[in-house]
This record gives sequence, structure tokens and C-alpha cells, in this order.
Amino acid sequence: MADLAARARDLDTQHAATDRRSLFHLPAGVVYLDGNSLGPLSRGAEEAVTDAVRRQWGEQLIRAWNESDWWGAPERIGDRIGALVGAAPGQVVVTDSTSVNLFKAVVAASRLRPGRSTVLTDPDSFPTDLYITRSAADLLGLTVELVPVGEAPARIAELGDSLALASYSQVDYRTGELWDLPALTRAAHDVGALACWDLCHSAGVLDVGLDDGAADLAVGCGYKYLSGGPGAPAFVYVATRHLAGFDTPLAGWNGHATPFAMSREYTPAPTITRARVGTAPMLSVLALEGALAAYDGLAVGQVRERSLSLTGFFLECLDALGIGLPVATPAEEARRGSQVSLRHPEAYAVVQALIARGVIGDFREPDIVRLGFAPLYLSHADVLAAAQHLEQVLSRREFEREDYRTRAAVT
Amino acid sequence: MADLAARARDLDTQHAATDRRSLFHLPAGVVYLDGNSLGPLSRGAEEAVTDAVRRQWGEQLIRAWNESDWWGAPERIGDRIGALVGAAPGQVVVTDSTSVNLFKAVVAASRLRPGRSTVLTDPDSFPTDLYITRSAADLLGLTVELVPVGEAPARIAELGDSLALASYSQVDYRTGELWDLPALTRAAHDVGALACWDLCHSAGVLDVGLDDGAADLAVGCGYKYLSGGPGAPAFVYVATRHLAGFDTPLAGWNGHATPFAMSREYTPAPTITRARVGTAPMLSVLALEGALAAYDGLAVGQVRERSLSLTGFFLECLDALGIGLPVATPAEEARRGSQVSLRHPEAYAVVQALIARGVIGDFREPDIVRLGFAPLYLSHADVLAAAQHLEQVLSRREFEREDYRTRAAVT
Repeated sequence: MADLAARARDLDTQHAATDRRSLFHLPAGVVYLDGNSLGPLSRGAEEAVTDAVRRQWGEQLIRAWNESDWWGAPERIGDRIGALVGAAPGQVVVTDSTSVNLFKAVVAASRLRPGRSTVLTDPDSFPTDLYITRSAADLLGLTVELVPVGEAPARIAELGDSLALASYSQVDYRTGELWDLPALTRAAHDVGALACWDLCHSAGVLDVGLDDGAADLAVGCGYKYLSGGPGAPAFVYVATRHLAGFDTPLAGWNGHATPFAMSREYTPAPTITRARVGTAPMLSVLALEGALAAYDGLAVGQVRERSLSLTGFFLECLDALGIGLPVATPAEEARRGSQVSLRHPEAYAVVQALIARGVIGDFREPDIVRLGFAPLYLSHADVLAAAQHLEQVLSRREFEREDYRTRAAVT
Repeated sequence: MADLAARARDLDTQHAATDRRSLFHLPAGVVYLDGNSLGPLSRGAEEAVTDAVRRQWGEQLIRAWNESDWWGAPERIGDRIGALVGAAPGQVVVTDSTSVNLFKAVVAASRLRPGRSTVLTDPDSFPTDLYITRSAADLLGLTVELVPVGEAPARIAELGDSLALASYSQVDYRTGELWDLPALTRAAHDVGALACWDLCHSAGVLDVGLDDGAADLAVGCGYKYLSGGPGAPAFVYVATRHLAGFDTPLAGWNGHATPFAMSREYTPAPTITRARVGTAPMLSVLALEGALAAYDGLAVGQVRERSLSLTGFFLECLDALGIGLPVATPAEEARRGSQVSLRHPEAYAVVQALIARGVIGDFREPDIVRLGFAPLYLSHADVLAAAQHLEQVLSRREFEREDYRTRAAVT
């Protein structure tokens, strides 16, 4: 134990340059391992919202659309996120929810690849990806095939020119496994199909590498690791080479080339603006922008390095403390996202017992204790504390308490 | 002039019980006639956002989904808006943008009326309604026919059982003309079709009467008269009798019957919840809820009475001050929304000259000076001041100043 504490101190010293804890509001006594579900409030987000409400909305009123450039915020913030996911400017815009953006992407992909009948996606995707992909496919007369990501390259080759799109998550939301974006994208391209990536569990914590990996389309969420606030608007990426052909099924006036001409005909903007639909929820948009200030001065590679050190140290602590739960997350760094998921038959109650001790993680069906290691505000000391609490929850069998087994409405 | 001032005072005394000005933040010296574009900040909205950011997000973190009932907010606020638009509880939910909601409504309507090939809408709709209706129709293989609302009943009768949906705005965004919702809905029902209403320019200022008028579907905006904040989330209404058949093209996990079961199959919630898609932008959602507190203790009929008195008095002032501009808005109360639109060949510059005098209205293509009379915070004294400034802008030909003719990015 003394060894682990000393090691945590050493690691925190080594990684001091990437510690951004002081930029976040976190309640005393809490180790927050749920930043992959809802990132915490940052000073940047708080200040952005206060200014947006009091000065911009309150004083500038309608003029804020110009004077505070509300109109350009979705592209401005899109580029900021683009820098974190390896996208050159002009390819990412903040808009709508991940679900709505995925709908646009699937429909647009099928229009970019007419005559191809199949969309491939992962049966273990976050469910909204399955629902939305099927919704879009129903409207388009396409077939959705559910193929686990590990088996996808072989199936893609078999499907050949009947494949329109392979749509996968870069990191599995339950296990935290990180998939090979360039390899799967290449497999899709080899048969002339497109690849769309869901970055909900990778944006902001690792080298997503959209441009380098030749991704065609991507969507992602603003409220997890990016800490944009509850239900923060999502983003969508369209590679420059596809912009002119990105034919959205949600042709809203915000995506028009000249929205204030009030033309009866829809002429899409030539830029990523065409992926916008209606007016963006600006207070939530600007909270996200404020939150992204926490990344100022950090390259995403540094963030990834800190993340791997945190999750790696957690795995080390599990071993050292004799916590023998099966680990669903790969130990290999190249295959590990920024979370560690453990399996336990009473996973829900384990999570509740941890929360009672101030270690906030979350439960995922059926048996997953999911612990997210958001690198900007967590320290190796936090990681050790979390592991120690977990050891006590298990050794004292705290998960057997009846009240820890009662499910809340939102789990 | 003295007569008008005395009359303004009398009217303000008569309507003192519905004056909610003290609940709003409005800069000194401003007469804000743009509440139909962006409603102003209210104390309720400001307090709601501050609490949502600091206490709920900042302290409760992920637990706020349960402890502050973020999860139930879209339906809770939907019911509050429902009370303003004549919808019994359980039929309205706050979600997405008006454009996205209209897309759901058009697709769902066509699925409720299979085998019917035509959707009717107004060529003078706010353009996003045209774009989105065509987007949906393209996916469904339907035909969109543009028929002005005045000619719609006759065309509906001709189309008979080939009509799936008549989709119209209750109040024209440019002229402010109020259309007869029950009559047009009846015409659609007479041929077995559905009626969808866009309430962007009627919600919160008049007796919309969705249930009484037997409307089938409706959409509307949170950021105009409802003053929910820039880009506030929109709402969608589905009449109870259509809920079970409301088959959304945007089947997101928030609309699932059991979203946290993480099932691979989409089972829509049996309630209006099925119109939700992804996670709602909660800071913007809660700002809207806070803003709606300004309606506490007011029946919408009282708000309508105040609105008619304000617009009626403005028309009276135009006459008395000899302002001879053509009025695009009907003088007849039953046909007048909550705005007065005037035509002027230099309408853009007239609006800029008014803004320079502190009277904020807006310009709409091609020649409309659009003045919105949001009843909760405007007085008859404000109305008189606006008319007097307008008289001076015109008589002094201030609209000829070159700098007033330079268009801003967002008009």
C-alpha cells in the first residue's frame, strides 16, 4: 500500500504538466469516474454560460447573432473539436444530437454510394446507433447487417460492391476496447464503400486521427469527455472530399447557402455548414465552447499519454490489491480506450456502494462496472483511492446491501 | 399626441393585471419588438440556468438526471407549453429544433396515412418548412404541392384520398396573418388526411387551441414569444389518438420504452416520449422552463387580450400619426397574430434606423418591417414610443443613410 501511494505520487509528479484539475469544479471528496457519461463543470463552461446569458442574450439581445457571432459558433467550435479528433478545419460542425447526426451520415453515405444495398454495423453498438441506422435504412430500402467489429473486415470483403457503409464505434461503450480505425476504414474503401465512425467514447481522450485514417464520416458527443454539459450538442465530421456530395435528409434553413434570402429552394452551403439544420441551442453550444478551453495548450497526444498512464496504473492497483474481478477492457495499450470496465454479477450494487464512498462510476447492462478515466482532472492519487474503495466494497461485501440493488430511473 | 399619451396610460391601467415587465431584463431605453425572433432574458430563465449549472451540473453531477429530474424535463416542460397551446397533458414534448420536429411529423403523418401520395404546404411558409417537407417527401416518394393557405381548402377537396397531410403555419411569419386552424384541419379531415401546424409565431401569444381544433400534429419554437433563449429547444405535439401510430424516422434511444435496458431492438415508448431522439441540451431546456414561469397565473386568453390591445393600439397610432405605410397585417382581430408588418421599399434601412433609436424590430425579405408585440413585457406606452420613432424615421428620411443599408451577416 505504501508502495502504491509512493508510486501514485511519482506518477503525478511525472505528469504534472498535463494536470488541469484546477480548471474544473469537482465536489470535495469525490473521485469522478463518470466523465464518459457526463463530464463535470469547468470554470470555462461556467464563465461562458454566464456571459452568454447576462451580456450576450440579456444586453445584446438579437444583435448577439452578429456581435457575439452566435451564427458562426457551430463551425468555430467544430474546428476546435476537429483539432482534437485529427480533422483539418472546415470538416466538423457542432449541431443536434449524436443520434440525429448519425441519421444524416447514414442517409448521406447511401446517397454517395447509390446502388449499394447494405450497411454494416456492430450488434454491440450503443443502441441508439442500431435504432437510427435501421430508421435510415428503412427509409432508403437498405439492409442493415449486424457484424461484430472483429469480424467486419472479412464480411466487408465478402459483400464487395453491395456494401454502402461500414458504421462503427471507435471505442466500445461497455468494454472500452479501442478498434483500429484506419484498418477498418481501409477495408471499406477496398470495396468502394464508406466508413462512418462514432467517436462518443474517443473524442477528447485519444488520437482519433480522422484525416490520417481516411475516415469518411464521423459523429460524436459533446457531453462526455469533452465536458460540454448535460446533453451538450453533438458534432458531425464530413471529409472535405465528400462535402459537395453530402446530401442531407434534414435540409434545414441553417444549412442553406444564403439562409436569410428566405428562398423557396434549398441550396446547401458549399461548406460543412450544410450539415446544420435548425437553430442551435446556443447556451448549450457556448457551454461546450467554454469547456473546450481546458484543452488549451495541450496536444491530444499528451492527453492520450496521461490517459494511458491513469488506466494502466488502475490495472496495476487491481493486481496489487488482489482485486480479482474479470477485466473487460484490453490490457494492451493500443486496444484500450480511456476507461476500465470490470465484470461482477452484482455490478449495479457495486457501483452504488462505490458512489456511497464518493467514487462515481456507472453501471452498464448486464454486469459491467464502468470506470471512466477522464485525463484532464484525474490524478494517479485519485486512481489509487478508487481502487482502494473498490477493494473495500468487495472485501466487506457492501454490494449485498438491499438498498444498493434498487434501480434508479436513470441508471 | 397628448391624446395618444393619455390613451396609452389609460390602456396600461386597464391592462395592469397582465403586465409582467418586472420579470424580464430589458436594457434601459429599448423598446423590444423582436420577441418574435429572439425573446429577451427573464429572471426565471437566468435563475434556472444558474441553478442548472452550479448546483445541478456542478454539484449533483451525473446524479442530476435523477435528483433534478433532467430525464423527465422534456415531457414536464412539454406539458407546460401544452397548457399554452391548448393541448391536454401528455401530447407535447420539448426536443430538437422545429425543423427536425417537422421532419418527424411529416414522415409519421405519411405512415399514418399509407397509400396517399401528396403533402400540401404553403409556398410562403418560413423556408425551412419547405425544405424539410421536401426532404421528407423525397425519402418517402411523396409529392409536395405548394398551395397558399387561402386556396388550400378547395385544393384539399380536389385531392381527396390522395392527400396525406396538409402542413401549414398558424401565423404567417412575414405578414402576421392568423389562419383558421379548426377550419383547415376540418378540410383535411373531410378527405381523411391529417393536419400539421407550425406554431412558431403563435405559441405563447394567442389561443392556439390544438385539441379544440382537432389538430393532428404540431411543431413550434422555444425561442420566440416563449423567450426560452437563443436556439431554445423546440416542441412537437402528437394528438393522443395518433400516439400509438406515431412511427418516427428518428428512432433515438431517448424515445425508447426502456432506454436503459440497452436493448438491440427499438421499442418506442407508448407516450409522447417516443418523439424524443438523443439527449436534450439540458442547459437550454432548463432556460426555457425558467422562462415559462413568466406565464404563471395567466390564462392564454388574457395574454391574447393584451396582445390584441397592443397591436390594435399600434394600428391606431399609425393612423393618428399619419404613417401611411401599407400594413401587411390584417386589421381584423380574428385574423391578426401578435405582430404588425409594414411594407417599405427600404425596409432594411428603416429597421436599422429604428434600431439606432432603440426600437428593435426586424427586416424580412423583400420589403417587410416586422414588429413583434410580445405581450408579457410590452406596454401601450412602448407601443406609442415605437410609433413616434417610426414617424420620425420616415419624416426625417433617416432610412436614406448609407450605413443603414449595409446588410449584416445575420439579418
